Amino acid sequence: MKKQVDTIVGKAAILIIDVTKGSLLPPDKTPIPIFDAQTAVNNIKEVVDVARTVDIPIIFFQELHRREMVDFGRELDGVEDVHCLEGSEDVEFIDYLKPMDGEFSIGKRRYSCFFATDLNILLKGLKVETLIICGFLTDVCVHYTSADAHQHDYYVRIMHDCVRGSSPEAHQASLNAIKYLQTASETNSKEIIGLLEKMTVKA
Amino acid sequence: MKKQVDTIVGKAAILIIDVTKGSLLPPDKTPIPIFDAQTAVNNIKEVVDVARTVDIPIIFFQELHRREMVDFGRELDGVEDVHCLEGSEDVEFIDYLKPMDGEFSIGKRRYSCFFATDLNILLKGLKVETLIICGFLTDVCVHYTSADAHQHDYYVRIMHDCVRGSSPEAHQASLNAIKYLQTASETNSKEIIGLLEKMTVKA
Amino acid sequence: MKKQVDTIVGKAAILIIDVTKGSLLPPDKTPIPIFDAQTAVNNIKEVVDVARTVDIPIIFFQELHRREMVDFGRELDGVEDVHCLEGSEDVEFIDYLKPMDGEFSIGKRRYSCFFATDLNILLKGLKVETLIICGFLTDVCVHYTSADAHQHDYYVRIMHDCVRGSSPEAHQASLNAIKYLQTASETNSKEIIGLLEKMTVKA
Amino acid sequence: MKKQVDTIVGKAAILIIDVTKGSLLPPDKTPIPIFDAQTAVNNIKEVVDVARTVDIPIIFFQELHRREMVDFGRELDGVEDVHCLEGSEDVEFIDYLKPMDGEFSIGKRRYSCFFATDLNILLKGLKVETLIICGFLTDVCVHYTSADAHQHDYYVRIMHDCVRGSSPEAHQASLNAIKYLQTASETNSKEIIGLLEKMTVKA
Repeated sequence: MKKQVDTIVGKAAILIIDVTKGSLLPPDKTPIPIFDAQTAVNNIKEVVDVARTVDIPIIFFQELHRREMVDFGRELDGVEDVHCLEGSEDVEFIDYLKPMDGEFSIGKRRYSCFFATDLNILLKGLKVETLIICGFLTDVCVHYTSADAHQHDYYVRIMHDCVRGSSPEAHQASLNAIKYLQTASETNSKEIIGLLEKMTVKA
Repeated sequence: MKKQVDTIVGKAAILIIDVTKGSLLPPDKTPIPIFDAQTAVNNIKEVVDVARTVDIPIIFFQELHRREMVDFGRELDGVEDVHCLEGSEDVEFIDYLKPMDGEFSIGKRRYSCFFATDLNILLKGLKVETLIICGFLTDVCVHYTSADAHQHDYYVRIMHDCVRGSSPEAHQASLNAIKYLQTASETNSKEIIGLLEKMTVKA
Repeated sequence: MKKQVDTIVGKAAILIIDVTKGSLLPPDKTPIPIFDAQTAVNNIKEVVDVARTVDIPIIFFQELHRREMVDFGRELDGVEDVHCLEGSEDVEFIDYLKPMDGEFSIGKRRYSCFFATDLNILLKGLKVETLIICGFLTDVCVHYTSADAHQHDYYVRIMHDCVRGSSPEAHQASLNAIKYLQTASETNSKEIIGLLEKMTVKA
Repeated sequence: MKKQVDTIVGKAAILIIDVTKGSLLPPDKTPIPIFDAQTAVNNIKEVVDVARTVDIPIIFFQELHRREMVDFGRELDGVEDVHCLEGSEDVEFIDYLKPMDGEFSIGKRRYSCFFATDLNILLKGLKVETLIICGFLTDVCVHYTSADAHQHDYYVRIMHDCVRGSSPEAHQASLNAIKYLQTASETNSKEIIGLLEKMTVKA
């Protein structure tokens, strides 16, 4: 069986995971510090600027927990403390990187963007086969979303310069683990921008 | 919020993931080589011998793919070649480590033991809250089962000497990732055997 | 095996399904006419008034479809025409029957309140075992939510005077079908109000 | 938006739900009596005989419960008593209507064939869009499988002369409810045999 090597197979969508105001806070101001988050945000912004000129769905995700503190499950048994409360400034999208009209936004209670959300309904409705993934944290929400995308039969493509994790080591280990699942999963903002520039310009 | 530290919270079950004849094959005889698998198998056997004397559910998993080659999804796009075909010797349980009467067995088509299986039904029926996990591969089925268990609100405990992965580095990275989710996830066969010996002896 | 007969087993929650401004529109003004909806709304209001004085979770549901028309799936292949678009007045909660602070609200894309939503996460977090269900339509969202609740091991209780369907016949047939699943599922606003009045008054 | 009217859209599969030796037992010999089951079995057999000559997947389902009595959930709170125990004769396929080599078989713990099974994985792998459904009981497993199929975006087609329920009234009410979801859901063995006879003969 020949391995799939094209970066985009069928129709694609861009998934931007948990890129919010909280992502850019310094380590002492957030329960979930991310190393070098600003670099990833800048690269994501460049991709989104081009993506908005062509016909490709963009889906933004926010992790959100109810203020009544009833939906954390086991999420406070690990490294992360209380995080992503609805209504807090941390979960707001960044001013220059927020959903525009015709783009999609999905709130989630767990790490995987597929878990207890309508993502699969949306992707089927859009007839998407390839997920171009970026955001935070490489070793948590990006990794578990990728594993679920893989198990749901999607082509998974990670823009390595557009994801960052809890540490450089954890970030790299998760990228390796995703490549174990799909050899062609590694891509970057430059390659994706090149592919987007060849797509149909938006009417 | 105080972090949970007990190793076993509420009722526990032992999950033995993908420990089959294929797990012990040499690297040139299997599409999924595992480093040092025999050590883990020996440790799991010791735990199971004690577990069988007390009142704790034991659940065995096999990854199984239909011979018609219709259910691999994207599983052949990565490092693994065709694997775990139904009816092949590879997927058979090891003679000295197979389900006995009153123990449970679940086949799965994907890496996570929760994905498209009846595991959650079974665990709810058994009123289990803590999953004591062992088997293969640390960085694939064990990791993604643990992530799903975490997202499904179970307490996740990994016997580190009873899991092995595709490489020592990938194995360790996944154990670290699981500890990021639940700080108390690390345990081992000796600690679990000690806890089992304190449980009610089977009638 | 003895059949369960208590109306409330363990902790309960009240589920109010798709009771919105659109529910009360005359048949020629809505794609989903409901017979005698006002009667059900009045009865639900009486239950909610009492429920708000005691310690019981109240969960409101809205069916919502994205204006981009990408998430209807097969929902337009039947009797219903385009319905429940986000931002339309139809999907707004009724002024005298909307979630208050501390109550819960869940949007859904499909008929079952469990399908692609975080309902199960919320119910587990609240440790709820019994679902007291009301709203619309008996023969669609109420019926399929009840079937899923049943399959997810919840105790299902329907307040018969607080649900209405596409026709009296379809309404009654679904109530019968739910009673086939759980003999004790039939209840009404008066019985539930009586049980609520015995609960702990809210601090 | 034009309603879909073709009986088969894209690729189809035949789903045979819970047609086992137990289905044909007299009312006093089974916890789940079905009226007029033999008529449906005869009609299903005619469809299968033709289907086996052409290129269409056939998927058989069995409801199966573990003998340890741990996975019934709430299934004993209704009309049905203990049923479908693994290893009992009741759950065996009928001699003249059992899966052959190359056909598929799926065990399930709940009423919907989608609930906690690998059905969706299989259907995606087979690239199936239309489900031709038959079996028992119209008002339980057939109805809830159809509702889930609908919510998973499949085209649902019921062969009305190949399903039977707990009573003629309950059977008819469920067929009506499925037609509410998809107007084109009603078909029968004669129409399907006619369509099968136009398909590519198996190599």
